[in-house]
Amino acid sequence: MTRRQDQPQANPQEAASPPTGPTSRRVPEGDTHERLVCDACGFINYENPKVVVGAVAVWDGKVLLCRRAIEPRRGYWTIPAGYMELNETTADGARREAREEACAELDLIDILAVYTIPRISQVQILYRAMIRDGLFAPGAESLETELFAWDAIPWDEIAFPSVHWALDHYQKAEGQAVLTPFSNPPGATGADPASVS
Amino acid sequence: MTRRQDQPQANPQEAASPPTGPTSRRVPEGDTHERLVCDACGFINYENPKVVVGAVAVWDGKVLLCRRAIEPRRGYWTIPAGYMELNETTADGARREAREEACAELDLIDILAVYTIPRISQVQILYRAMIRDGLFAPGAESLETELFAWDAIPWDEIAFPSVHWALDHYQKAEGQAVLTPFSNPPGATGADPASVS
Repeated sequence: MTRRQDQPQANPQEAASPPTGPTSRRVPEGDTHERLVCDACGFINYENPKVVVGAVAVWDGKVLLCRRAIEPRRGYWTIPAGYMELNETTADGARREAREEACAELDLIDILAVYTIPRISQVQILYRAMIRDGLFAPGAESLETELFAWDAIPWDEIAFPSVHWALDHYQKAEGQAVLTPFSNPPGATGADPASVS
Repeated sequence: MTRRQDQPQANPQEAASPPTGPTSRRVPEGDTHERLVCDACGFINYENPKVVVGAVAVWDGKVLLCRRAIEPRRGYWTIPAGYMELNETTADGARREAREEACAELDLIDILAVYTIPRISQVQILYRAMIRDGLFAPGAESLETELFAWDAIPWDEIAFPSVHWALDHYQKAEGQAVLTPFSNPPGATGADPASVS
């Protein structure tokens, strides 16, 4: 979507395409890193990693998965998780995502894992949780929501590597009342959305 | 620093003040939240919480503190910690901050705490760590670096509430090989930089 400002516009269709945001790349005064800057308004786009919050939530020994109604990975299964919003805590964010994606109220137990996906600069903080009263239903971003016994999890239809990791780690931690949060499996970076490493 | 675009500029000094960034607040198409938008370049400023990574690092039973050479809270003591950069892991970020602020190489042990400061939308991921070879020195952002015995910590000169929390929590966790990471102390939001709650 980047286009040099000094290039002639090819046709009205292209002229009407969405704006691209700041396109000047330079080191702002007093800074040490190159940043994207808008030459019109002077906005400096400081980019930092984004936080995803979510939970492996269980009821009656089964785990809650949501089949995604949105891209990326539409139709694949995931745990309830999403981007943390401003002015909320990590725990509140994890509960909100479960409410939005699975109409479920969660009781969080502890932090299962802190993963980093450096390629996309994402930090994932995932909790162990119980589904309150066992109640859930598809939210707007889910095609369906379902409780899976561990031996019935659709491993070939899992949306993201980190969902694999979290489910594996949850099983490894079962019965442990006190838990050191897991990090990425050794060597796994989450670089390829279709693989588990 | 915000100024309405249609107001006359009071004097040349004010006219030369730094640009303010995008100032239109509206709900972009397909979005559900109001965002700040630049009317010139169309940039949409999606804001998310920022991640701070750091460590309570010890050597010979004493804890490493850095006296800040920069605002905010210049002259006050803190643990080595700072904003996570793009394309690094949380652990790499914590080690980088110790290198920058205290010229120390850290061996991270586990996650001591995950704090949220909702008022400033900050998530802090803080590790327990050992200082490799006991070597440290002030980095560019520190006036001095020092190892403190626990009963010699300058509690009245600590830079931020979350530094208090982390030091308290580290002491509470001493001797625990496996640790559930702490979160904010009950009721503490970190709202007031000068208080501990």
